[in-house]
Amino acid sequence: MKVVFLGTGGTYPSKHRNVTSVALQMPGEVLMFDCGEGTQRQLMHSSVSFMRISKVFVTHLHADHFLGIPGLIQSMSLNGRESELAIYGPNGTEETVKAMLNLGYFKCGYPVEARDIAPDSTLDFGTYTVRTASADHTVPALAYAVEESARPGRFDPSKAKALGVLEGPMFRRLQEGRAVTVKGSQVRPEEVMGPPRRGRKFVYTGDTRPSEGLVEFSRGADVLVHDCTVDSKHAKLASEFGHSTAAGAASVAKAACVKRLFLVHFSPRYDDVGILREEARVTFPDSETAEEFSDHVVRHSE
Amino acid sequence: MKVVFLGTGGTYPSKHRNVTSVALQMPGEVLMFDCGEGTQRQLMHSSVSFMRISKVFVTHLHADHFLGIPGLIQSMSLNGRESELAIYGPNGTEETVKAMLNLGYFKCGYPVEARDIAPDSTLDFGTYTVRTASADHTVPALAYAVEESARPGRFDPSKAKALGVLEGPMFRRLQEGRAVTVKGSQVRPEEVMGPPRRGRKFVYTGDTRPSEGLVEFSRGADVLVHDCTVDSKHAKLASEFGHSTAAGAASVAKAACVKRLFLVHFSPRYDDVGILREEARVTFPDSETAEEFSDHVVRHSE
Repeated sequence: MKVVFLGTGGTYPSKHRNVTSVALQMPGEVLMFDCGEGTQRQLMHSSVSFMRISKVFVTHLHADHFLGIPGLIQSMSLNGRESELAIYGPNGTEETVKAMLNLGYFKCGYPVEARDIAPDSTLDFGTYTVRTASADHTVPALAYAVEESARPGRFDPSKAKALGVLEGPMFRRLQEGRAVTVKGSQVRPEEVMGPPRRGRKFVYTGDTRPSEGLVEFSRGADVLVHDCTVDSKHAKLASEFGHSTAAGAASVAKAACVKRLFLVHFSPRYDDVGILREEARVTFPDSETAEEFSDHVVRHSE
Repeated sequence: MKVVFLGTGGTYPSKHRNVTSVALQMPGEVLMFDCGEGTQRQLMHSSVSFMRISKVFVTHLHADHFLGIPGLIQSMSLNGRESELAIYGPNGTEETVKAMLNLGYFKCGYPVEARDIAPDSTLDFGTYTVRTASADHTVPALAYAVEESARPGRFDPSKAKALGVLEGPMFRRLQEGRAVTVKGSQVRPEEVMGPPRRGRKFVYTGDTRPSEGLVEFSRGADVLVHDCTVDSKHAKLASEFGHSTAAGAASVAKAACVKRLFLVHFSPRYDDVGILREEARVTFPDSETAEEFSDHVVRHSE
């Protein structure tokens, strides 16, 4: 699991930051969170293969979060994509995607499935789920949590040997969760494996004020990517427009006991976001301001 | 009059070229020709003030020529624009702009007037006209010619003096096109001024095959900006998809006796467009491949 920041600015692009988009590399596919104008070109400057994007999750229908979708869809088609692209978002997403596909002359060479999803939904993709929660913005907005399924516990070879299991194919069979028979009696996997280990958790808030709901939603996340539009001098402005200060984002990270906080969606007023990073670190030391094209590998904690 | 190349690539953006957009700086305003995705950010890297753009001329409704419009409109609004923005294009432009303004949550803070225009139209803006012609593409497409009004002829001070006109306010009056009275008899401007001098002419073809119609339309232009998607090895492809080779563009420039040819809309297959420049120069030596953010000042020829 690797987070790649394709755009880290908010509201409108600036010379050095594109509007917000975050890619999450998963085994065999890429999940995209928000897709502002110009994201397809940001992808070309990143390590992410844009043809491997399987799903796009839109937080809300403000232009800086979705205007890159039609260009991305068309370029994928021009490059011969055949597999379906799924697009999820709050109410209005399906209609908006439909309208974007109907702009000008264009016939898509592969299926695009857009779907409105409600807050507090869970989408089950087998090896991981994507859950939604309401973000606290000026228009209906979703935060997303990606949670991997639990992995099997650790295999204990000494326990297995003590039960008479021979190293080799029988070890593998147990590690795969199947029982083996030793001298007529069964050895079950749970006798030689530790407890299941939880998968990794990634949370992306999109645009939001700091909220109690998002603290619960983010609890224990390995990575929290949180709105950080301004510093605390502009707290009133942030609240009025449904955004967070660096301190606000850090307080959510701290209360939720996340491992790492990445700040994004910086107002174009900041040429240097050092002030935001420093402000967040006062409350939550493991804070980082995301840079264009930077990435972060999310490791298993156990 | 200055041409600024904001994007020089075609079909879809590449790492080093954005899709096509050309700005024409006129006295007190900027005209924009095509506006692909990401153009607002290209503007930030250029010398063009995006708030001075008064009119956008769309050649045709393929995404690489218009998808930058909604983001540009919204950023102008967020930056407090109050003056009208006019958008012209072929049939379907008004409907497409309306659809783009209705995407997601957005209320524009200034008037946007979109208007479909037919080929062979003339829009009179007082000090200049914009004419349209049919381009030869796969969908309805317009080429645009900007032609300045003729300037007054050169004032000949020796002729004026010989007619008894005194240097000073009377000279100025004649230069402004008004008669003066010297010793009871009238001296008319045409007695002391040369013939009117033609204004500058700029032509932008948009996507097109080389065409006889565009030769006539471009005749005598100071600058011709012409589609040049591929080199002649791919002539069949160019023709099939309604584009020009470098040689094709150069043949139009030569036949139309233009002063300068700029090639744009390069296929993403070219990392180096030198081959296109060289191919064009065989037919028309004053050919140049446009570079991102490069500009060209169009001088009066007389």
